[in-house]
Amino acid sequence: MEFPRSSNDILSLEELEDVWPILQGEERLEALYAPSRPVAENFFLQLSSEDQADILTNLPEGEKRSWIRLLPPDDAADVLQIVNKEQHPSLLQYLDEPTRKEVTALLAYAEDDAGGLMNPRYARLRPDMPLDEAISYLKRQTRAQIENIYYIYVLDEGQHLLGVVSYRDLFSADPQKKIRDIMRTHIVKADEAMDQEALGQLFKRYKFLAVPVVDSENRLKGVVTVDDIVDVMTEEATEDIQKLGAVSPLEMPYMKTSIFDLVKKRAGWLSVLFLGEMLTASAMSRYALEIEKAVVLALFLPLIISSGGNSGSQASTLVIRAMAVGEITLRDWWRVAKREIFSGLALGGVLGVIGFIRIFVWQYFFESYGEHYTLIAITLFASLIGVVLIGTIAGSMLPFILSRLKLDPASASAPFVATLVDVGGLIIYFSIAALLLQGSLL
Amino acid sequence: MEFPRSSNDILSLEELEDVWPILQGEERLEALYAPSRPVAENFFLQLSSEDQADILTNLPEGEKRSWIRLLPPDDAADVLQIVNKEQHPSLLQYLDEPTRKEVTALLAYAEDDAGGLMNPRYARLRPDMPLDEAISYLKRQTRAQIENIYYIYVLDEGQHLLGVVSYRDLFSADPQKKIRDIMRTHIVKADEAMDQEALGQLFKRYKFLAVPVVDSENRLKGVVTVDDIVDVMTEEATEDIQKLGAVSPLEMPYMKTSIFDLVKKRAGWLSVLFLGEMLTASAMSRYALEIEKAVVLALFLPLIISSGGNSGSQASTLVIRAMAVGEITLRDWWRVAKREIFSGLALGGVLGVIGFIRIFVWQYFFESYGEHYTLIAITLFASLIGVVLIGTIAGSMLPFILSRLKLDPASASAPFVATLVDVGGLIIYFSIAALLLQGSLL
Repeated sequence: MEFPRSSNDILSLEELEDVWPILQGEERLEALYAPSRPVAENFFLQLSSEDQADILTNLPEGEKRSWIRLLPPDDAADVLQIVNKEQHPSLLQYLDEPTRKEVTALLAYAEDDAGGLMNPRYARLRPDMPLDEAISYLKRQTRAQIENIYYIYVLDEGQHLLGVVSYRDLFSADPQKKIRDIMRTHIVKADEAMDQEALGQLFKRYKFLAVPVVDSENRLKGVVTVDDIVDVMTEEATEDIQKLGAVSPLEMPYMKTSIFDLVKKRAGWLSVLFLGEMLTASAMSRYALEIEKAVVLALFLPLIISSGGNSGSQASTLVIRAMAVGEITLRDWWRVAKREIFSGLALGGVLGVIGFIRIFVWQYFFESYGEHYTLIAITLFASLIGVVLIGTIAGSMLPFILSRLKLDPASASAPFVATLVDVGGLIIYFSIAALLLQGSLL
Repeated sequence: MEFPRSSNDILSLEELEDVWPILQGEERLEALYAPSRPVAENFFLQLSSEDQADILTNLPEGEKRSWIRLLPPDDAADVLQIVNKEQHPSLLQYLDEPTRKEVTALLAYAEDDAGGLMNPRYARLRPDMPLDEAISYLKRQTRAQIENIYYIYVLDEGQHLLGVVSYRDLFSADPQKKIRDIMRTHIVKADEAMDQEALGQLFKRYKFLAVPVVDSENRLKGVVTVDDIVDVMTEEATEDIQKLGAVSPLEMPYMKTSIFDLVKKRAGWLSVLFLGEMLTASAMSRYALEIEKAVVLALFLPLIISSGGNSGSQASTLVIRAMAVGEITLRDWWRVAKREIFSGLALGGVLGVIGFIRIFVWQYFFESYGEHYTLIAITLFASLIGVVLIGTIAGSMLPFILSRLKLDPASASAPFVATLVDVGGLIIYFSIAALLLQGSLL
């Protein structure tokens, strides 16, 4: 909500933004002191919490106070959540007494809850104030550091939330009326413990600028504003995307995550998938005899099983995203299954035809597949339809199963689905081959 | 920005939301007329543009006017962008003359540009107005349908944007001052043609509530507000996620997309991947002799190549997301490559050790792999390191290559990377086997 202040400023703000990513440690502190103080402050305020934490811990002691005091209490709490617990006292000491209390209270909430996102400062009024008095009272209040300037909350003596008025309401009503007469009393509000993903949905649905956060007794604890929600939605999307790639969500940006952590976050899933994929080795050992008789079968193996994995990835991606944006819920499973069965047959048919043609073309030019090439082509065609079909079914139903088990459907990642489908695809392929090639190749 | 109005209302609004997804066609129109009119209107306003378009086209002629006039011009334009072009005149006729002009002007913009997102109505002032006069002028203006109530824009006679004031500024300054004295003149603004993804980054970075959209001569054309951006960011994430799953982005929600379209959006990529994967069949035919001699080699094939695909998917997912949120850019490629080479070696080592142990355990219990099992275990170990390494390198570098070619890095989907890596993995595996098993098994 800050505007750059002069023509030179906006230039050096942009320059600062430009060089920032390639600077490290000490250089960043120097860069921060290069432009005028207001520019540096604006720049500091728009940095991510990670960068703010970085700067605050590296600043010389004498400088820390003026920079940490720039932050509103919710942002200061975010910074503290990033630095080591041992450093908390050394940073908290620089805050003024009331802010320190607010920040300490915020630290008690989980980072991902409404309580962890809210700003404990908001404009407040009593219900029996006349409007003109309220307006001049607010003029004094707005000079303090109140981030949320869109709504004013009406509280009784016990801090219970009675209603809300917007600045626009104040503007347009008769100044002789009381707040009670113009306040809106049915308010969409969030519980302290509401998960940030649910909170994001609330904002998206009602297009609010701010949502009040109350405790179980309807006492106002703070306000979450839409600018924090924009960050939350990006964060949640990043988490989902990383899960879809079979990576445990990183807590920090990719480049800031240490290589050791990066390996740790990936080794877990990769090993699980590897163990799952070992089943293919076991399954294949049952078909060792067939492979020995007809090596041609082995040639198409990667092609067949990867097609199942790919169609499964497509299906799971579509279903997981539709679930995440609230478009489908558990009860839609059968409608989705019908769509995916049909899609699987159609897509399998397309690939089957391509595979069929490929065998005939290669046979014509290179005579690659011997006298039984028609049977091989039919085996390939039928296997592709079967494998793609189990791909779409497994890919689309796995997110429902995970969700039913109260697990995150986004864990049905492309590699996970592919691994599941590989074993099934292999069995389908060799079973169809055994059926069709008995007496000829086998 | 609308609040439900009474205690009964909020209940039936929630009930309406609850039943909506399972209703179809006629039933939806009936449901819309079940609650009180204000509730129905609030509900209608918070529906997606697709649902709004659905309702507006199905309503009886006499009802259309009052519902379409509820929509602000930018939302009305979104609805028109969804319905068939032939229906435009029949819906446009119900708008009042000035709104019709605004909507028609908006339809000329691409849906994904700043111009396509902006609302052409905004509060405006002249620079030489005294504050008290401005406030009473705004009181009259705010009664009209102006969505953006956060900033007021200061224009000259030619509609050129001179400055901006917030309601808060108006409140706290001396009422004898002129607008010119308090307006901020350095404004972050968007060009009409700015892409919605860039616009989203702008909002995220500066935490604005609204950004003015100007043409090349700095004439104010409209205002984009943060609530529209929340939708945009969700849309962009959905698009990226679908691409990561190797699906061409759907234009409509999954359940609203016809099965025919669904198959079409998937068949393209699936066929491309299938054609790519055919290279594995060609590559393998070169190793047919080796497979015939040592069928045991074929058993581990799916395990080996899928490990490369999985580690590649992880790497590409991490890199693509870091690019999308602006954390890394093209020039970071070498820093990323170094991280991924190290990660690939470490992850390959982990899988290699698991694979090595597996062979020894199976050999001990089942004597599965004959006298040369140690050599087979070493082949597996070395192949896994090689395959996982090319997986992480290909997965992390492919997004950079696509981005360098001005293509969307998100197209480096898990299945795409897996397909690329499969051929390479296969060649590595058989080459190592040829080297290590020469004279024993081969």
